[in-house]
Order: sequence, then structure tokens, then C-alpha cells
Amino acid sequence: MTLPRLKSLDELQPGDRYELGRLTFSLEDIREFARRYDPQPFHLDEEAARDSVFGTVVAAGLHTLSACFGMLMASPLLQEISLAGSAMDIRWPAPLRPGEEVTVSVEVIEVTRSRARKDRGSARLRYVARRVEDGVVVLDATGLHHLRR
Amino acid sequence: MTLPRLKSLDELQPGDRYELGRLTFSLEDIREFARRYDPQPFHLDEEAARDSVFGTVVAAGLHTLSACFGMLMASPLLQEISLAGSAMDIRWPAPLRPGEEVTVSVEVIEVTRSRARKDRGSARLRYVARRVEDGVVVLDATGLHHLRR
Repeated sequence: MTLPRLKSLDELQPGDRYELGRLTFSLEDIREFARRYDPQPFHLDEEAARDSVFGTVVAAGLHTLSACFGMLMASPLLQEISLAGSAMDIRWPAPLRPGEEVTVSVEVIEVTRSRARKDRGSARLRYVARRVEDGVVVLDATGLHHLRR
Repeated sequence: MTLPRLKSLDELQPGDRYELGRLTFSLEDIREFARRYDPQPFHLDEEAARDSVFGTVVAAGLHTLSACFGMLMASPLLQEISLAGSAMDIRWPAPLRPGEEVTVSVEVIEVTRSRARKDRGSARLRYVARRVEDGVVVLDATGLHHLRR
């Protein structure tokens, strides 16, 4: 799939939706992120994870978030218009396990033009990761992006 | 500083505050995270960053968040009671630059006991990273933690 390289915030409309691709973590991917940023036993150790509420190793929520956000930022979509980000609200409704494949999409929720600066504005973008097998959402995050016009 | 190893959610009270320590990113730390999870020019390249709204390389917001969260999860505080996390609301009021030192603290905002499961509950914990030099907050995040009682 080819995503457009936007030239202006004005090309975004609430309701627009882009598919960013698919993502799968191996057990070692999950453990590598967790060792640095969330060293809880149920992200690191299969035996310890058996006694956790998850029953198996699951990805750190910040890992899923960072990887999905990275797919957006590595895509052409915002490369010419992204100025900064300043806020994010995140929900992890279900865990993500090693080997599970998710699709990652981004949807435009709101677009605001700056009154003070005619060359910029902001957009609320919602990133959703959904398990391919059963459609369950494992990440639902909305970020506030400051963008060029 | 030694943080306690909590045995139960009941040991947390709204208003409790713990200092997690200090944190500094080198330019290479910032670039390493950004290459994988937020490859925008102002996180990767000093020359490109000069033309950005920041004027210099700044850390990816998810990097600051992940590192601060990692300090909490590597500390003894929640090691025996953390079951899962399911939500987070984040603000990045100011950028974090290479070499800038921040202090990281966590504050208890709210504690809720489960009615259905007497052995667990949840707490809203707020993580704040503040630049040592001028006290400016660079990260203000509140996470929903599911904890043992």
C-alpha cells in the first residue's frame, strides 16, 4: 500500500483513514523492549508469565504503542508536515502476545487551524492496532500532532 | 534513595510521592530510540533539527515516557503488586534535549479497590519528569495500574 506524502494539514479531513501495515512481535522483540523500558516478569519470562493475569508473555503496552507510532512516522504521510507532538491518550484493551499479527491504522479525528500562525495547525490522530485473527483491538491511542499548512 | 517494596495496594494513598531518580539522554541515546520508534529528522539529525521548531535535536516523547516508566518498573515499588496497566494520558509540555538532566517522580492520584475481587484494585499514578536546571516539566503522564491487595 502506498500512502500519500501530504503537503499541508489542509489535506486531512476528519474521518480519513490510512492503513499503515501489519506488525508482529517475536518473544525476543518483546523481551528486548521490556528489559529497558518495562522489566516486569510477564514481559520477560515465560515461566513467571504463567502465574500472571495474562498466562503468557505479553508485549509491554509502551512497546506496542512505540512500534505503531513508529510505523506512522516512518511512512511518507506526515514527513513533510510534522512539526511536533504534545499529548497522547492511550488505551490497551487487550494484551498482545508473541507471534500475534496486528493491522495498524490511523484515523483523523479532528483538524484545527491556528489563528495566530496561518502556516500551521494541529490534528488529533487515532492509531488503532487490531489482531488479524479475531479483530480484537490491542491499542487505541489518540495523539495531538502539530502540523504545517 | 531506597524505595519501599509494597506488599499491597492498601499501602498507597492519594498524595504519596516517590522520587525515582535522575535521567539524562545523550544524543546517541535519542537517535537510537528515534531510529526505531520515531524517525523524524528533529530526533535524528543535528542539521535538520536546526530548521525545526525546536532548533536542536530533542528526544522523542515516547522515549522520555518509556525511560521514566522503566525507572518506575525497575524500582522495587510495584514489583510485588503490579498485575497490568491498561491506560495512560500523557502531556509533553516542553522538549528534552541531549545532556539535559531531569528528575523523575511518581505521585499517587487515586486508589480504587475492586468490589468483585477483594485481592486487587487499581491506582492512577502520575509520572513527572522535570529539568533539574530550571524546573520545567518535560513529561506529565498518568497511568492506570492494576495492582494486588
